[in-house]
Amino acid sequence: MAAKLISSRTRIADLGKPRIVIVGGGFGGLEVIKTLKGTNAQIVLFDKNNYHTFQPLLYQVATSGLDTGSIVYPFRKVLGKNKDFYFRLGEVTHITPEQNTIETTIGSLKYDYLVIATGANTNYYGMEDIQKYAVPIKTIEDAIQLRNKIIKNFENALLTDDNELMNSLMDYVVVGGGPTGVEIAGALAELKKHVFPNDYKELDLYEMDVHLVEATPRLLNGMSDIAGKKAADFLTKMGVRLHLGQSVKSYDGHTVELNDGTTIISRTLIWAAGVAGSPIPGLHEDAILRGNRIQVDEFNRVKGYDNIFAVGDVAAMITEDTPRGHPMMAPPAMQQGRHLARNIKNIIQKRNLKPFKYLDKGSMATVGRNKAVVDMGKIRIQGFIAWFIWIFVHLLYLVGFRNKLGVLLTWISSYFSYDKSHRLIIGRSGTSEFEEILEINSHIKPTKDENQNS
Amino acid sequence: MAAKLISSRTRIADLGKPRIVIVGGGFGGLEVIKTLKGTNAQIVLFDKNNYHTFQPLLYQVATSGLDTGSIVYPFRKVLGKNKDFYFRLGEVTHITPEQNTIETTIGSLKYDYLVIATGANTNYYGMEDIQKYAVPIKTIEDAIQLRNKIIKNFENALLTDDNELMNSLMDYVVVGGGPTGVEIAGALAELKKHVFPNDYKELDLYEMDVHLVEATPRLLNGMSDIAGKKAADFLTKMGVRLHLGQSVKSYDGHTVELNDGTTIISRTLIWAAGVAGSPIPGLHEDAILRGNRIQVDEFNRVKGYDNIFAVGDVAAMITEDTPRGHPMMAPPAMQQGRHLARNIKNIIQKRNLKPFKYLDKGSMATVGRNKAVVDMGKIRIQGFIAWFIWIFVHLLYLVGFRNKLGVLLTWISSYFSYDKSHRLIIGRSGTSEFEEILEINSHIKPTKDENQNS
Repeated sequence: MAAKLISSRTRIADLGKPRIVIVGGGFGGLEVIKTLKGTNAQIVLFDKNNYHTFQPLLYQVATSGLDTGSIVYPFRKVLGKNKDFYFRLGEVTHITPEQNTIETTIGSLKYDYLVIATGANTNYYGMEDIQKYAVPIKTIEDAIQLRNKIIKNFENALLTDDNELMNSLMDYVVVGGGPTGVEIAGALAELKKHVFPNDYKELDLYEMDVHLVEATPRLLNGMSDIAGKKAADFLTKMGVRLHLGQSVKSYDGHTVELNDGTTIISRTLIWAAGVAGSPIPGLHEDAILRGNRIQVDEFNRVKGYDNIFAVGDVAAMITEDTPRGHPMMAPPAMQQGRHLARNIKNIIQKRNLKPFKYLDKGSMATVGRNKAVVDMGKIRIQGFIAWFIWIFVHLLYLVGFRNKLGVLLTWISSYFSYDKSHRLIIGRSGTSEFEEILEINSHIKPTKDENQNS
Repeated sequence: MAAKLISSRTRIADLGKPRIVIVGGGFGGLEVIKTLKGTNAQIVLFDKNNYHTFQPLLYQVATSGLDTGSIVYPFRKVLGKNKDFYFRLGEVTHITPEQNTIETTIGSLKYDYLVIATGANTNYYGMEDIQKYAVPIKTIEDAIQLRNKIIKNFENALLTDDNELMNSLMDYVVVGGGPTGVEIAGALAELKKHVFPNDYKELDLYEMDVHLVEATPRLLNGMSDIAGKKAADFLTKMGVRLHLGQSVKSYDGHTVELNDGTTIISRTLIWAAGVAGSPIPGLHEDAILRGNRIQVDEFNRVKGYDNIFAVGDVAAMITEDTPRGHPMMAPPAMQQGRHLARNIKNIIQKRNLKPFKYLDKGSMATVGRNKAVVDMGKIRIQGFIAWFIWIFVHLLYLVGFRNKLGVLLTWISSYFSYDKSHRLIIGRSGTSEFEEILEINSHIKPTKDENQNS
């Protein structure tokens, strides 16, 4: 380990107070920070981005429903004027627990308490072809790339008379029947019904197919049977083709093969089939469980360490009640974050720790306008009221008043206009759009010049 | 010229009606299209992007004041349900007037009437070092890159104890004292005063300098003397350092040299010093004037052609009243666009053409909150009322109700909070941010480890 400490050059001064380093500003990390306000400690947040992302609405950015700025929020605005709060843009690459030190892309730093809130990454289960050709939807950059790709596909579909090529550009395969997969399939079906028929009058939108592939026999496995069944009904009525009990065997960028031998020709496979924890290297191997999650006790302490903690998707709190940890979703992350912050205060003030108890307020997923499913305790709601609850809860948890207001106004306007107005191609991908068009053109067979006399 | 016509494969059918092709959907092109509604003709719009950009507010995107989505608008939403309107995403690379054909990146197409509305590009006046290292601000991608760069500069400034390096990251040189240069210098001064002191508590914001360089002895040359003088007063009071009568001699990415020998150390030179028309190759040379503008007559007809027209920044209407053409700004472009569309209708209906007459409604520039300058006929207004007029006019011309509402709400909220909330680093540049940080780190001299015992 290079021993160059980050502190002097980054002006993270030694304040003579305990230093709490939080890695990752997702739902869990952000709650830790907010709840630590007023603690006599120095708080340092590291993140690869300079903003918090409201992941539950990424699918709406990807399907042109919301602007990027509405669902992200700069960390420095969250941290505010408090002089004990520090933010550093950088990736933490290694922990050296014996020395209470982290290595980062911008130098190393000592900590008194370390909170790992690094969340989860897309899990391709070792399938290299999927990783190469599929489109993930886990970050705002992913969502922008997917939005650009969907719109470019349709612009490119106008340029060919080859029916197979045209179809492969208009057909979408979504893999994963959890909330993200269900929500994105529903949003694509709405683009097909309400937006693209006007935008692409020259195309026959009946040719656009949306497929949803799920390995288990039902949708929304984390929710009640009735929620899964109703979501399937909603999607079927919206024209989405469900492939339940099926998984993807291979994908070469053009042809998706399912495990029963079915093939689907599509240029776009959206991978929402799984996530794995993204722990930081350097912890001893015993602490890392299946799915790359970090084992923590009921105080969110990482197994084998006194001053290293983990919260949220990356943490698996293994207790009798939760033999596989809590679900990898926002509510447990937020509750763990708040609870851990209180326990760190307890440690600093030499008080006893309190064990974490998850309060399951329910779960929900939306399928489209007026269509959602909600489970709250023993109550199960579907349809318009569920959709209204979904909207209310998402606005409530969105960070920042301006974001709440912006999203609410966009939703109201979209509701009455049936429109999704952010169908923009902004931000260059690796290959230029003209390279893509040339690639498309290379597939075009010579056709007669209908129009030579015009 | 490859004779493959675009029509069959792009489904631009021969409707047996005149085909009007418009190249470029800026202020001019968009007005042509809107005004042509109801004409018995087929209308085809080509653009490199799938959205219209409201260029006057690019500087606010670049300085974190507005979200990207608020100032762009998808062309397909403008064109609406009208079956005679076609949009194609592509660049027009050549005109072959003898054959009434354009070549594009997606194929070739015949036209009956061609409207060139390709606008202007950043003009570096042949200075290769400037072109290589300076940041332009002409497209939404430019604005996003500049926003990312400004925020990254400050994140990177935290990582060094080398004062010269830190200063070069915190200092900004804006070149060009027209409206864009004045507006961006003012917005940077506001970031310095209201936003960055909270965001970067560890930095001394007195170290942040904003320089504005203008080759002539005054600002805002297109406006009245009092407007230029008052803008200079406003900027000086806001702490901007004016270099009037100075031009940039060289820039190597680190040091700006002015023609009087002054040097300014800065990592960021924002180039708002000039634009040149961007005509399409293939027109005969006589039609191209100094500054790459296309000479048109009082009917916006390109010199030497009957069925090729140009409007907006790319067009120079040379008449006795306008020996150098109209100013390269939105109002003449919009008026020419509307007028040309009516004249094309006249041609189709075999009526006489009417000459274009520019109605100068005035011009304006904003410097900061409550500070703008407005010239309207003989009336000159500065300060709060001018600022209010500026806001009203910009909201009026912004395309789309949702954009108007979004921008208005953002402005109201920023006005009361003194905040600019879109300070995000989204969208990767060519080099990764970590490469940049490594590059920054390579400049860092070894420093003592203040913090080893913490």
